[in-house]
Amino acid sequence: MSGSKNRLDAIQQHMTPEQKHAVAVDPVASMTEERAKAVFNIRELTYLLDGGEKTTLLKERFMQDFERDPLFKMDDIHDISKDELRERTMEKFRSLIHHLSNEPLDIFKKRMEIVSLIDPGFWTRFGVHYGLFVGALQSNATSGQLGYWFQKGALSLSGMVGCFAMTELGHGSNVPGLETTATFDEASDQFIIHTPTVTATKWWIGGAAHSATHSAVFAQLVVKGKNYGTKCFIVPLRDPKTYNTLPGINIGDLGKKMGRDGIDNGYIQFTNVRIPRAYMLMKHAKVSRSGVVKEPKLQQLTYGALLQGRVAMVVDSGHTSKKALTIAIRYAAVRRQFSNSKSDVETKLLDYPIHQRRLMPLLAQTFAMLFTGNEMSAMYNKMMGRLENAKSGDTDLEEVLEMLKETHSTSAGLKAFCTWNCLSTIEACRQACGGHGYSAYTGLAGMYQDFAVQCTWEGDNTILTLQLGRYLIGSYREAVKGKKLSPGVGYLNNLQQLIGKKCRADANLLDPQVIIEGWQVVCANVVQNAALEFEDCIKRGLDIDDAYEQCSQSRLYAAKIHSYGYLFNRFVDGVSKVQDNLKHVLMEVCLLYGLYTVEENAGAFLQYEYFSPTQMEQIRTKTNELCAAVREQAIPLVDAFNLTDYMVNSPLGRADGNVYVHYFDQVKRSNPQGPHPYFNRLIKPLIERQIDNDDDIEDEEAGLEEDEEEDDEE
Amino acid sequence: MSGSKNRLDAIQQHMTPEQKHAVAVDPVASMTEERAKAVFNIRELTYLLDGGEKTTLLKERFMQDFERDPLFKMDDIHDISKDELRERTMEKFRSLIHHLSNEPLDIFKKRMEIVSLIDPGFWTRFGVHYGLFVGALQSNATSGQLGYWFQKGALSLSGMVGCFAMTELGHGSNVPGLETTATFDEASDQFIIHTPTVTATKWWIGGAAHSATHSAVFAQLVVKGKNYGTKCFIVPLRDPKTYNTLPGINIGDLGKKMGRDGIDNGYIQFTNVRIPRAYMLMKHAKVSRSGVVKEPKLQQLTYGALLQGRVAMVVDSGHTSKKALTIAIRYAAVRRQFSNSKSDVETKLLDYPIHQRRLMPLLAQTFAMLFTGNEMSAMYNKMMGRLENAKSGDTDLEEVLEMLKETHSTSAGLKAFCTWNCLSTIEACRQACGGHGYSAYTGLAGMYQDFAVQCTWEGDNTILTLQLGRYLIGSYREAVKGKKLSPGVGYLNNLQQLIGKKCRADANLLDPQVIIEGWQVVCANVVQNAALEFEDCIKRGLDIDDAYEQCSQSRLYAAKIHSYGYLFNRFVDGVSKVQDNLKHVLMEVCLLYGLYTVEENAGAFLQYEYFSPTQMEQIRTKTNELCAAVREQAIPLVDAFNLTDYMVNSPLGRADGNVYVHYFDQVKRSNPQGPHPYFNRLIKPLIERQIDNDDDIEDEEAGLEEDEEEDDEE
Repeated sequence: MSGSKNRLDAIQQHMTPEQKHAVAVDPVASMTEERAKAVFNIRELTYLLDGGEKTTLLKERFMQDFERDPLFKMDDIHDISKDELRERTMEKFRSLIHHLSNEPLDIFKKRMEIVSLIDPGFWTRFGVHYGLFVGALQSNATSGQLGYWFQKGALSLSGMVGCFAMTELGHGSNVPGLETTATFDEASDQFIIHTPTVTATKWWIGGAAHSATHSAVFAQLVVKGKNYGTKCFIVPLRDPKTYNTLPGINIGDLGKKMGRDGIDNGYIQFTNVRIPRAYMLMKHAKVSRSGVVKEPKLQQLTYGALLQGRVAMVVDSGHTSKKALTIAIRYAAVRRQFSNSKSDVETKLLDYPIHQRRLMPLLAQTFAMLFTGNEMSAMYNKMMGRLENAKSGDTDLEEVLEMLKETHSTSAGLKAFCTWNCLSTIEACRQACGGHGYSAYTGLAGMYQDFAVQCTWEGDNTILTLQLGRYLIGSYREAVKGKKLSPGVGYLNNLQQLIGKKCRADANLLDPQVIIEGWQVVCANVVQNAALEFEDCIKRGLDIDDAYEQCSQSRLYAAKIHSYGYLFNRFVDGVSKVQDNLKHVLMEVCLLYGLYTVEENAGAFLQYEYFSPTQMEQIRTKTNELCAAVREQAIPLVDAFNLTDYMVNSPLGRADGNVYVHYFDQVKRSNPQGPHPYFNRLIKPLIERQIDNDDDIEDEEAGLEEDEEEDDEE
Repeated sequence: MSGSKNRLDAIQQHMTPEQKHAVAVDPVASMTEERAKAVFNIRELTYLLDGGEKTTLLKERFMQDFERDPLFKMDDIHDISKDELRERTMEKFRSLIHHLSNEPLDIFKKRMEIVSLIDPGFWTRFGVHYGLFVGALQSNATSGQLGYWFQKGALSLSGMVGCFAMTELGHGSNVPGLETTATFDEASDQFIIHTPTVTATKWWIGGAAHSATHSAVFAQLVVKGKNYGTKCFIVPLRDPKTYNTLPGINIGDLGKKMGRDGIDNGYIQFTNVRIPRAYMLMKHAKVSRSGVVKEPKLQQLTYGALLQGRVAMVVDSGHTSKKALTIAIRYAAVRRQFSNSKSDVETKLLDYPIHQRRLMPLLAQTFAMLFTGNEMSAMYNKMMGRLENAKSGDTDLEEVLEMLKETHSTSAGLKAFCTWNCLSTIEACRQACGGHGYSAYTGLAGMYQDFAVQCTWEGDNTILTLQLGRYLIGSYREAVKGKKLSPGVGYLNNLQQLIGKKCRADANLLDPQVIIEGWQVVCANVVQNAALEFEDCIKRGLDIDDAYEQCSQSRLYAAKIHSYGYLFNRFVDGVSKVQDNLKHVLMEVCLLYGLYTVEENAGAFLQYEYFSPTQMEQIRTKTNELCAAVREQAIPLVDAFNLTDYMVNSPLGRADGNVYVHYFDQVKRSNPQGPHPYFNRLIKPLIERQIDNDDDIEDEEAGLEEDEEEDDEE
């Protein structure tokens, strides 16, 4: 580096002051300067984040695949209409089905992770068939039924495309409250699927408007006048040869959304639609030819597959945050604004302490989410493995149910926590790009609009957070009774030591164990508070559901605080396994996450007096210092995310730092100059109108001067 | 009401259980039930919020005007393209110019407040000419120049349309750092306007792409090789007869944005464009025929008019929050989800404590912003009045400069605080509508996208908050020297009493004076901390600017805490002037705002030990109780906002509560059913493809079975 520095000095000797200034503010030079600051091996960090060199190489191959695939052209995405986007999104199916039939499923899943970052709308539309529809078959069909539908083309997408019709216009999270009915007609051995009211209309059904021939419909099973609750039925919607809707099916398009307009969400109304009895998926509940209903013993075992989407969203939150921060941090490294009194070169945004405060904690949080996503995936896979064994009787059922409960509540809480974090990260990054963050071409606006739905679907975030809160209260009550809890909530087994514990005045606030203990103390307190409030409600005679509702604010708070601590623990775990080269920088990032989140939750730490007001002041100072330290490695850290320019798809996030040139080019390419579209129709008559004839003097001309006063009062 | 109740009972006697259930969950009946809960005179509250019956009637007239004006049709706004939207937005000029020339300016300004709620994009596009361009003339032109441009049509919009070219691609907030040059050419008595680099390209210029003939251009004045800093020049851009750009002008369209696509933002490059010397606006700095530059003495006096936009945005934040909450709260009053064990009727969202927690504090905050907006407007008008007098020498100049400084920093801080609050209110309301919040037709998605820019333009929120922080530090240092401060920061005159003060253990936490004192104590502490940190930096040898940068995090924190306290004070002031009928309900709302914000900032209150941990627990409980109390009046409170269905423009926010029917109608109207748009081109070949010929068995067919292993590893 010093060689090129000397060469630069030599060149500068012959420059005019203007030329020197131009070099000093050159964004490409600024980026190079930042990149040269790396004190760690960037490539090794990439391997670590990806889970190994092999995965990194795989991801790089996928990124190249898509970049070169004309169907995955993304730089004009902001200027095509919803209808064009819908059509282009369908077109991509072809390319992805090719890969699906040519690579092992776990490899293909990695490919889908990349797709979700390139085009989240397409990811969802493809996922509606393969994740939701095929997932519904796998969870609910007998093996015979599964074979039937696979043979009919459900897996190969030949002759049929599926969608997943659960939610209704008037019914979202409350699945047992769905209104659609599936009434068994013994005479014909058929079910009659029916939408009884407007609010029973199936709503938000991805793929319904233009893609699907079949639907997995959730409806109330009614046999001989008795309601057996919600079950899943396969209902044909369209003739695959013409795509005309079948008799009794009314489908419409839900139209424009905040984002993900590539998905053709629709509504479906069923009017006495008849399907064979065998189209009810009978892995669990069964209805016999004579109308005898057999209900499953362990309904819970069917829930496992439903968690897959939530786990994917935890992982996706980390990945999407990477993309948002790549844009905002690279831009901050080259954007200059104001100069101090000693220089005529404006200061990089990244050098402002306040800008470091805006972005560095979010960078740290992204790492926390990435480590957590890995852990969550591992927990899910382990649980699913045990679940499979349980079905064949190989594992202790009680233990599996316990794992299922833990995975369920952990994934619920983390899905909510991480998608909220990611959404606010995107918005913070957007605002950190100033006015340019409002342009569609800089990518963050669309990213927000696409991501926002993650806070609602597959379980509204507030409801999911409350589910985690309920699990925490339950765990607390079990811990009090002496039960040994699973590691994630293991701190509740140490209530006696934790409640009332204070940090030593001379403790090292940069010791991760001090922060871990702090979170444990605070978590133990807030969970205990929620549990005591719950028990108080029970004592006052409320039933369990009402008691949980009454303490919902404490429950939500407990779940949030628990999630902060949980992420910090995952981060510390992750760093502890790292070799020396990376350990130093990652530990700084980890401590920043720890202290920043303590500061954000200062109320809790002071409330339970783990940290004193003095320590809290020190934590603020140290957080500032850590922001400044992490800022030094910010570009190398972002480089380690290893997203290509194609993936980032934002001129502000270009690796070379040449942001203004790329941005200007993109704007010009997207908006070619041409003749004025409406000058003659609108502007000409407006600015050439005769002012003398204007209405404000008509009264006068008509001799009505005396009415002026009245008019004014009107 | 009890008569209709009896009638309902009588009807229900003859109903089937299904019919009874349908009545119980009927959204219209739910809304009627909520409306009947009003314990105050809704109309009187509307008058109070509007500032009197006369204004309410005026607003109602305007709402009707626009609803009936075909150009202001808004229900199809989500489905038209950017180009159509641009054209329609231009079309609205005609209607508004008619009103502008027919009603007094203060009445017209009320009309514009309504317009900003109906169509924020149009509001901005119209405001670019009348607010920014004409505003630039009024602030910077001599009276002779003003007459010249008005006579040319600047006021009547005849023969010319203006735009405002300040920001550049590489330069936003730092106006002195703009690169565009205006070089005086003595020979021709002209200025040469020039864009020297790509980063000097004028960027984000509203109206540039399709509307403007002239631009108020901010450029570095260069005379005889010397730079005199940024001044304002009127530069013709287009021939008004043809709208062809003039020689040396290169204009392009900035294209798609996050929202407000009705504004035709563009870029402008000037290549040695010559304008007469007289086109420099010379109210302040002057350049004579011979190139003598005369600079103004009191540049500050020119800033007053620039604050108008910020003040308008404080007011707009309150209004837009009203609109968002009308939607979310009305929906929550009729949407039902889950039932408890004792009922088969699902519970209203609004009856869930957690949903009350999501929306009631935001409702309270909206009232706080409305009272603050009124106060801010009054402060601004008073200051501008004094400023006018000062110019004619009637007022003490020092006092006026003091007022200007206070108005400047207060409006800066409140613009940031209120626009941030409003943006998160919109998002919280959107999420509170569940999945339906993601539909474009329910209005909140677009509202977010349109509003988001308010956090950036007319001063980036972070920078503005820091400006308030700087003012607070300055005020603190003056207070320490014994100066009596203006009321907004008057608490800094009582540092001795406030620092270290604790709330009495038996204090009534529902006494607004206790909360006011709490905010004063906390504000005094955080401002003092920031000031001491600043002084420490100075002692360590930093210059003033660097010292302010170093303490920016404390400065930001101080400004935020100050703003919370400021809003609560305005709310209490506002309520104190109210008559008995409204006082009770408004005081509940006010206390909710007070305690909720204390809870949100628990860290600060515990840090400075104003409230004890025990009191903080009590505050949490009381906040829950206040949420439940305000919930009872939520629909009447929202009704008092007095926005018509046309204004709210969301089926979920309809006054009659018939949300599902209106929503379904809107979706169907916006997306008529028709033939499949791409079945033959894309879907048919996909689902009818011959799987047997698919690539996954090609190897086998070609006899390459032995390569399989290698392929897998690829």
